[in-house]
Amino acid sequence: MGLVVQKFGGTSVGSAERIKNVAERIIEEKQRGNDVVVVVSAMGKTTDDLVKLADELTERPSKREMDVLLSTGEQITISLLAMALNAKEVDAVSFTGWQAGIQTEAVHGNARILNIEAERIQAQLKLGKVVIVAGFQGATEDGAITTLGRGGSDTTAVALAAALKADKCDIYTDVTGVFTTDPRYIKNARKLFSVSYDEMLELANLGAGVLHPRAVEYAKNYQVPLVVRSSMEREEGTIIEEEVSMEQNLVVRGVAFEDNITSVTVFGLKDPLTSLATIFTTLAAHHINVDIIIQSLTDQKTMNVSFSIKDSDLEETVKVLEENKAALSYEKVTSEQGLAKVSIVGSGMISNPGVAADMFKVLASEDIVIKMVSTSEIKVSTVIVKEKMVQAVEALHDAFELSSVPVIA
Amino acid sequence: MGLVVQKFGGTSVGSAERIKNVAERIIEEKQRGNDVVVVVSAMGKTTDDLVKLADELTERPSKREMDVLLSTGEQITISLLAMALNAKEVDAVSFTGWQAGIQTEAVHGNARILNIEAERIQAQLKLGKVVIVAGFQGATEDGAITTLGRGGSDTTAVALAAALKADKCDIYTDVTGVFTTDPRYIKNARKLFSVSYDEMLELANLGAGVLHPRAVEYAKNYQVPLVVRSSMEREEGTIIEEEVSMEQNLVVRGVAFEDNITSVTVFGLKDPLTSLATIFTTLAAHHINVDIIIQSLTDQKTMNVSFSIKDSDLEETVKVLEENKAALSYEKVTSEQGLAKVSIVGSGMISNPGVAADMFKVLASEDIVIKMVSTSEIKVSTVIVKEKMVQAVEALHDAFELSSVPVIA
Repeated sequence: MGLVVQKFGGTSVGSAERIKNVAERIIEEKQRGNDVVVVVSAMGKTTDDLVKLADELTERPSKREMDVLLSTGEQITISLLAMALNAKEVDAVSFTGWQAGIQTEAVHGNARILNIEAERIQAQLKLGKVVIVAGFQGATEDGAITTLGRGGSDTTAVALAAALKADKCDIYTDVTGVFTTDPRYIKNARKLFSVSYDEMLELANLGAGVLHPRAVEYAKNYQVPLVVRSSMEREEGTIIEEEVSMEQNLVVRGVAFEDNITSVTVFGLKDPLTSLATIFTTLAAHHINVDIIIQSLTDQKTMNVSFSIKDSDLEETVKVLEENKAALSYEKVTSEQGLAKVSIVGSGMISNPGVAADMFKVLASEDIVIKMVSTSEIKVSTVIVKEKMVQAVEALHDAFELSSVPVIA
Repeated sequence: MGLVVQKFGGTSVGSAERIKNVAERIIEEKQRGNDVVVVVSAMGKTTDDLVKLADELTERPSKREMDVLLSTGEQITISLLAMALNAKEVDAVSFTGWQAGIQTEAVHGNARILNIEAERIQAQLKLGKVVIVAGFQGATEDGAITTLGRGGSDTTAVALAAALKADKCDIYTDVTGVFTTDPRYIKNARKLFSVSYDEMLELANLGAGVLHPRAVEYAKNYQVPLVVRSSMEREEGTIIEEEVSMEQNLVVRGVAFEDNITSVTVFGLKDPLTSLATIFTTLAAHHINVDIIIQSLTDQKTMNVSFSIKDSDLEETVKVLEENKAALSYEKVTSEQGLAKVSIVGSGMISNPGVAADMFKVLASEDIVIKMVSTSEIKVSTVIVKEKMVQAVEALHDAFELSSVPVIA
């Protein structure tokens, strides 16, 4: 008999019918003899509706009050799910974030979990009850309600699994697992049996979108085994854990991609020593997210630096750079919009230095010009024109034989 | 500089526009130099919508989970109102019931407030902030969310006013005050300048409906001056306080009425000593509310008792009496539906024994047969046929000159 944490997202609890379906999944887990702690998000469009109400009142709602407002979304779901379980004669009890003992930083809208006082949950588990916890929320030491920001319910689930020493944490979602690449674009995409935390982190950061990086990091730190699986279908999902055993021979585990990328190049920076720090500090202060950064010294005196941003941030980026031209001391700025990022990810790369070269060869054979390259130990990212993104992903998916490996389950 | 508690009901906060209007009323009070604590209900139809969600899942939702669900309604309002005040550059902070330190019994759906730990509110008032508290809710010692049942937000406001030693508690509602009788039925109804707690209690119990009796009782116990007034119009409301000074000469202060009353008579009870206790204990156990009770010994051996209930409770009442016929030991039960209760209320009656007689004379002159009578120190209630209810109220309102006394303000 073990302890399983289950997490169901907003789509999975989007209606009374779906909440009943979730209750069934919980009961199945109970019938396997496990204790169950469930983490749920707000129902479907609830959060959007609440944001709309706030918008009618003010353009700049206080972050503290937004947390009070938005946290009602999950509170509605926990009570309804508890009722659905009670209706099926299963004892269940709901807890908001503060009731579950989830203590966070005093950062409204994007708090981190500091500690979980799990006694109240443990007492209810001992009574044989299913414990349902509101995801995405907690409270500060002073008792102010906080929310955890994007991916918050995933993080709640993983943090609870860690605090309760759960045997695993099942993330139920609207896909059946983690795929070698996005199945909506690439027909041959294959569901992975398992990936490592690091691989999942790179995939998540690259826009694979199934799990929030913060949740994966938390799971890695506390060695919580995660399973990503479908709330509607019964098939096995993808296990995320430290050591990936079954597909160890795979050098590349997935191909991730993302469009609407802009590359920006700043030419002729006069101060190679401090320019980099100054540019990116300035951009961060204006909330511009920079992804890839490439820098090369062109001659002894000046430096060029290129970086990638989202298309939508270009206007603001150019404005910020121009306003700070004197302080940054550069010659000119150029940019190119309409690009895409295509990356291969796999922990097997670490011991296999030719993988990046293989990737470049594949793209060259497809007549795809690489605009930028960035590498890490388990990832190679390239920036290319958006029009060739799907072509590039298909070619790489085939070349690294990602579709031909059978699912092991 | 004083402290004022303001309470706004669900209609007053039913839309973004109305919440902005409430913010204006709060700012007006602040500008008079007072500290302000605001208690709000859930927006208009929110509670109904939440109940509907629960109904889709189960016919018998757990009361604990209903409290978790319904308490989100006020939580939404407090955050929105705080945002509306912030948007007008007024510092405000919202508190749920548990954050405001409102401790209740562990009775879900109908809890009583046990204690208010007001330190957190006081600290925020010291910082010059408007404190907005969710009405109708609290938490048990164990941290479970509770709701206070009907009239809950009124009670929250009065309890906070008592705990904070506020100078007054303004109940903003959709009427402009307490009237001598219901202005929707009786044209000459006049707004009272003031009523005593006891008079208000009788009026509230008699269906005047402006304020919940529990809130009035609380106000009386803690001597909190209440003002009932309109949230939309600026005119003065009605003061509810211990000593009514300005209209002391008024023997009768109001005429209350209520239809859909049934009278039930149980004939030939064999045990005059214990029958009364047994009957009403049995009915209470079946959640049947009994209003007027009249009892008379007909001969030495048996007793008859009459009482009034709501029309809708008749079927259940007859069923309960028949099921317990052996234990209660009576001859027969009769009932009459389609009745109405008409009452006159006024603390001046205590020292004026002819008032009841005056009332009976007025009804007799209108050819209205009195079916039942019940009297208290400040109230005389009569039960008559429903069809003559409005006629009776108009005649009494005129006879006691309720419309001719000018408003003193």
